[in-house]
Amino acid sequence: MKDKAGLAAHAPHHAAGVPRSAEEQAKLEHAFRELFERMITFNQTLGVQVVSVDPAAPRIRFDMRPELVGHFLYDRLHGGVISAVLDATGGFALMCAIGEKHKNESAEQVLLRFARMGTIDLRVDFLRPGKGEHFIASARVSRLGGRIGSTQMTLENDAGTLIATGSAAYVIS
Amino acid sequence: MKDKAGLAAHAPHHAAGVPRSAEEQAKLEHAFRELFERMITFNQTLGVQVVSVDPAAPRIRFDMRPELVGHFLYDRLHGGVISAVLDATGGFALMCAIGEKHKNESAEQVLLRFARMGTIDLRVDFLRPGKGEHFIASARVSRLGGRIGSTQMTLENDAGTLIATGSAAYVIS
Amino acid sequence: MKDKAGLAAHAPHHAAGVPRSAEEQAKLEHAFRELFERMITFNQTLGVQVVSVDPAAPRIRFDMRPELVGHFLYDRLHGGVISAVLDATGGFALMCAIGEKHKNESAEQVLLRFARMGTIDLRVDFLRPGKGEHFIASARVSRLGGRIGSTQMTLENDAGTLIATGSAAYVIS
Amino acid sequence: MKDKAGLAAHAPHHAAGVPRSAEEQAKLEHAFRELFERMITFNQTLGVQVVSVDPAAPRIRFDMRPELVGHFLYDRLHGGVISAVLDATGGFALMCAIGEKHKNESAEQVLLRFARMGTIDLRVDFLRPGKGEHFIASARVSRLGGRIGSTQMTLENDAGTLIATGSAAYVIS
Repeated sequence: MKDKAGLAAHAPHHAAGVPRSAEEQAKLEHAFRELFERMITFNQTLGVQVVSVDPAAPRIRFDMRPELVGHFLYDRLHGGVISAVLDATGGFALMCAIGEKHKNESAEQVLLRFARMGTIDLRVDFLRPGKGEHFIASARVSRLGGRIGSTQMTLENDAGTLIATGSAAYVIS
Repeated sequence: MKDKAGLAAHAPHHAAGVPRSAEEQAKLEHAFRELFERMITFNQTLGVQVVSVDPAAPRIRFDMRPELVGHFLYDRLHGGVISAVLDATGGFALMCAIGEKHKNESAEQVLLRFARMGTIDLRVDFLRPGKGEHFIASARVSRLGGRIGSTQMTLENDAGTLIATGSAAYVIS
Repeated sequence: MKDKAGLAAHAPHHAAGVPRSAEEQAKLEHAFRELFERMITFNQTLGVQVVSVDPAAPRIRFDMRPELVGHFLYDRLHGGVISAVLDATGGFALMCAIGEKHKNESAEQVLLRFARMGTIDLRVDFLRPGKGEHFIASARVSRLGGRIGSTQMTLENDAGTLIATGSAAYVIS
Repeated sequence: MKDKAGLAAHAPHHAAGVPRSAEEQAKLEHAFRELFERMITFNQTLGVQVVSVDPAAPRIRFDMRPELVGHFLYDRLHGGVISAVLDATGGFALMCAIGEKHKNESAEQVLLRFARMGTIDLRVDFLRPGKGEHFIASARVSRLGGRIGSTQMTLENDAGTLIATGSAAYVIS
């Protein structure tokens, strides 16, 4: 039986107090990538790829593509692409942090937590034109409470130029 | 000779103090639509269409499409789509307001102002799931200064449910 | 026995399903004012006063005073005063809405909900100089969920000029 | 002749291309402190003091005082105090950065730039309760353009706990 997120609702519970095995961790990281890169349809439109699932330094990458520009005569990212990537990166960073926090839970249990997560609000500061061949988005978790998670995000181009920063709050469980 | 925005840099100046003619106004409104719906490439990805260029009530519409959803199992807009549309709608509302403020300028002159516009920052509040068959975004201009414009935006679905609100600041000239 | 908010922890429970009496409602509204105007110490520094506890149109008022200005040579509100008042007004609007939503709860029960409330984040747009003899802040609740509340706030001066707008998210229960 | 900010409008211009002298720099730093701590009246209410005017790491400090708390039974900073200090700290960081950028200008010229500065908008994330005996606010400048400056701010207590973060945009010249 599956819930709406396609996850087993009655996943075999993990033995309490036992950190998940290397195999289970690999399964979780694989699931993070699948979810982020494939199951979230609009992320495919953006072309985002997971670079690192390390909770200390989660990173996302995407390439410049013609569909992502603003005005067709300029070779710059549309602001909406920047907002979307920063929001997604903040959520991804929280996902990694939640996986770390609930080390004793199985991959399925952690993914169920992610399925219940939602962005409350987002701020983006557009600092410099979104020029580059590829871009790296990273995020750090500034709060990981029981109900609310907060993140701070940055977007840099391939030359290391800071393009944008963001802050977001998420409802978590 | 064209500048980077493809606009005539030395557009014939309008007679000072004379409001633009109905013909010139129609030309400007046509240009707004072309710019918004076609020249801004990512707006095509979003599928946004101009409903009203009335400065008192500018409105944008777009249809739900599979590419715009978040998780593929949910039929809800990706948060990044919401942010992108609200940012674009705020900019569009300012464009309409600038056209109204500079009534004595030709369409080309107003479009040059738009080419120099940029979003400084954006906030989005995601209030309810982005469910619906089509969506209407509207905005009002809360400040139209000489250097800074501010807007407040809303996104509703076809049933009139408030999905999200936003605020943004833009650099203008 | 009192909890940290000075409220009776074991308040006599209200008969379920019965809206609170006019007397109990008056008690609640009185408590809102007391809490807002007196118990929140910094609100005294700001000098805020409750104008209306109507959930449909909650309103706060405060007078210009020398302590509230920015640069001593300008007679304008400090930006920090504007932020503080808008945050407080959003929280106040939620308090009124929560009182309305939980009509069957006693004043004490509603106040316990307020004691657990906290601001998650806040955005303020400073639109025009904070000049005036007195100011009116109002707010509307754009989301009242089980865990998260969102509000939009405005600050006007005595001439009805829009000084600032704000958005905030609050954790509620 | 003085402008509204009490600054000499026709300050003796500095020799172009010559960095200001150590004496002039000391004068500027003294003026920054005076302006920040004394002339901005509400900053006195907050009790903020300049710790460092180093453009690479500007820092502000203030002590917990009864007037700054929220609910009188809790010993926590009012959210409005946090917002006000973060806004002020962002502006202060920009002031330091502008002094550094315009090294060839006299103290008076730099102060005139500051007099024309204004906050466009502000976001604050309230991460943890504002408990502590004193607090340190710091900021970094993420954009220093010709017209717009952006900053990111943090507030920590004396134990180094992160209390809040903020982002703001300012109009500069």
